[in-house]
Amino acid sequence: MDPVPLLQALIRCPSVTPADAGALSVLEAALQPLGFACTRLRFGPEGEEVENLFARRGTGSPHLCFAGHTDVVPPGDLASWTADPFAAEIRDGLVMGRGATDMKGGIAAWIAAIASLPRDLPGSLSLLITGDEEGPSVDGTVKVLSWMAENGQIPDVCVVGEPTSRAVLGDTIKIGRRGSLNAAITLHGVQGHAAYPQRADNPVHRLVRVLHRLTAQPLDSGSEWFEPSTLQVTSVDVGNPATNVIPGTARAKLNIRFNDLHSSTSLIALLRAALDAEEARYELDTVCSGESFLTSPGPFVDALVAATRAEAGVTPKLDTGGGTSDARFITRYCPVAELGAVGATMHKADESTPVEELRALARLYAGVIRRLTAG
Amino acid sequence: MDPVPLLQALIRCPSVTPADAGALSVLEAALQPLGFACTRLRFGPEGEEVENLFARRGTGSPHLCFAGHTDVVPPGDLASWTADPFAAEIRDGLVMGRGATDMKGGIAAWIAAIASLPRDLPGSLSLLITGDEEGPSVDGTVKVLSWMAENGQIPDVCVVGEPTSRAVLGDTIKIGRRGSLNAAITLHGVQGHAAYPQRADNPVHRLVRVLHRLTAQPLDSGSEWFEPSTLQVTSVDVGNPATNVIPGTARAKLNIRFNDLHSSTSLIALLRAALDAEEARYELDTVCSGESFLTSPGPFVDALVAATRAEAGVTPKLDTGGGTSDARFITRYCPVAELGAVGATMHKADESTPVEELRALARLYAGVIRRLTAG
Ligand SMILES: [Zn+2]
Ligand SMILES: [Zn+2]
Repeated sequence: MDPVPLLQALIRCPSVTPADAGALSVLEAALQPLGFACTRLRFGPEGEEVENLFARRGTGSPHLCFAGHTDVVPPGDLASWTADPFAAEIRDGLVMGRGATDMKGGIAAWIAAIASLPRDLPGSLSLLITGDEEGPSVDGTVKVLSWMAENGQIPDVCVVGEPTSRAVLGDTIKIGRRGSLNAAITLHGVQGHAAYPQRADNPVHRLVRVLHRLTAQPLDSGSEWFEPSTLQVTSVDVGNPATNVIPGTARAKLNIRFNDLHSSTSLIALLRAALDAEEARYELDTVCSGESFLTSPGPFVDALVAATRAEAGVTPKLDTGGGTSDARFITRYCPVAELGAVGATMHKADESTPVEELRALARLYAGVIRRLTAG
Repeated sequence: MDPVPLLQALIRCPSVTPADAGALSVLEAALQPLGFACTRLRFGPEGEEVENLFARRGTGSPHLCFAGHTDVVPPGDLASWTADPFAAEIRDGLVMGRGATDMKGGIAAWIAAIASLPRDLPGSLSLLITGDEEGPSVDGTVKVLSWMAENGQIPDVCVVGEPTSRAVLGDTIKIGRRGSLNAAITLHGVQGHAAYPQRADNPVHRLVRVLHRLTAQPLDSGSEWFEPSTLQVTSVDVGNPATNVIPGTARAKLNIRFNDLHSSTSLIALLRAALDAEEARYELDTVCSGESFLTSPGPFVDALVAATRAEAGVTPKLDTGGGTSDARFITRYCPVAELGAVGATMHKADESTPVEELRALARLYAGVIRRLTAG
């Protein structure tokens, strides 16, 4: 089975989050003949449900799951495209279109890999496909995983098909992701006249001290598998138009990308300590969109590395950089790693994947499946 | 001559800046019978001229000038007043109304003092009265002084009748004022994704460092006659709504109240040094609304102190605190000091001055005039 026509069929469904646009039906039609039992899972407010798909073949152990998403980011300015983003035209050996690399190509390659392998593999296979990865990620992978846990469908290991490769197929496997914490600080002082600062309490000066404390030193110098954590102050806002008035309140927003030396709990404590040092009234609001996680190298990761060396002819770098992915949710249930296409054009105009690279990815995935179902 | 009816007549002119509302005509009517030649000086855009008055009696030396303003700040919320702010009602021994202390009372007391003294005093007297002190101060004292310089009317010394007293009449003489500098900083970085700060250059972090440099230590620890200078960051504004984006630009506004150890030039150099340390692109816009000045104690100030001791029975503190006044313009031409009523109610609801204090101020001013015209 060639992954190219399947990828083309998927691209032709304009499944910009939260639209499904028929993408999951394309997958069901490909998976059912391969012996998969398909379950459509709809989550979210009535009338605005997000479509998700869980497909399973067999019940044996080890249970290998592939996780991915059919939703795509919007094409953006169409004038920047030289091809119709939803036509899946093949040009100069490239499949053109939104989702070609992120990550309809990965899904098509995985299914083609299954089709290329005998039906009587040991263990069992499943696919967790969501329509809500590029959006709020609320009614997608998180809820499918809950459903899987309730229904005894938690896999032993999971491969996420995100486009992790940088320059050459297979050069990078993600074995973890940094966490991300957003914080909003509101610091209160005492308003007053700029000529009499002794009668006021300038919250801007306090906030400058707090932010200086937080940014003067790096949070850490990295760990075995992670780059150093980063803290970025993304905004400071006082909005005081009067040049002769000391304001009563000052606000700041921060984003922290953190490695396995921290957790949202430890970072919130660190923020509170920097604020408490001022002995001023403040509010701290935080949202953690994902804790950091690491799938420590071992037999699971070794199998992915071995498959990549054998099938793609490169030794992959084990990496934990970049943004977040749904792997942050899967790690709560089982070991997870990410391996997929070269992501250079993802989220850009003229997103595309080379036909030959897609076929090579299918061969690589076949090697992965063989090794991870071998038990 | 009792200063009370003159103050009442002045309060009944609702001369909220830039309106004159007849206030200067009231003064002309009081000064002409005392032998003063009155010159009305109108400055500003056609149809929006500000009214000012220069009055002179005699040409002899020493030439003592009294400077003041008939314009007043708005009454504000009338519900906070228990009296009509422009009725000049006398209640419980107080003259009630906007301008009673700041500073129609001072003008009335000075004119009453002149009336109480013989016409054949040595030297000569003048009054510089503006209608633009509480406003932009562009078409008032500055332009009257230019006119005086062009017309050979620059005095030897000048007393400003601002309400300098704190608790008891005469307890404070202002012999200088701090300067005031406003600065607006725009700092440029390189915008980017919060997950990849190494590819961006966060201007907020640079701005935090600049502001920390500027606020971590005091500018000075005061000088012989001045309190320490103060620097207040009055606003920081980035306005970045996206939690995952490092912004490209960050802005801050500062107000510096500075003593005689600094000038606007030295402070701008200090700001530039703190900014240059970042080696980033920035814009710095500054507005100096007045340099600091000091009228060093000597015969002029000694005469004011002696008059206050003799006539008010208190030893005045020589002070340089507080906001700015038109003395910042007069100091460019001649020695200037400020002495006047108790300012507790200035700019507030139910502004008032005690009848007996106003009369005592007239006696104090008479002592001042006698001493400063004695030559
Ligand atoms: Zn993706
Ligand atoms: Zn005043």
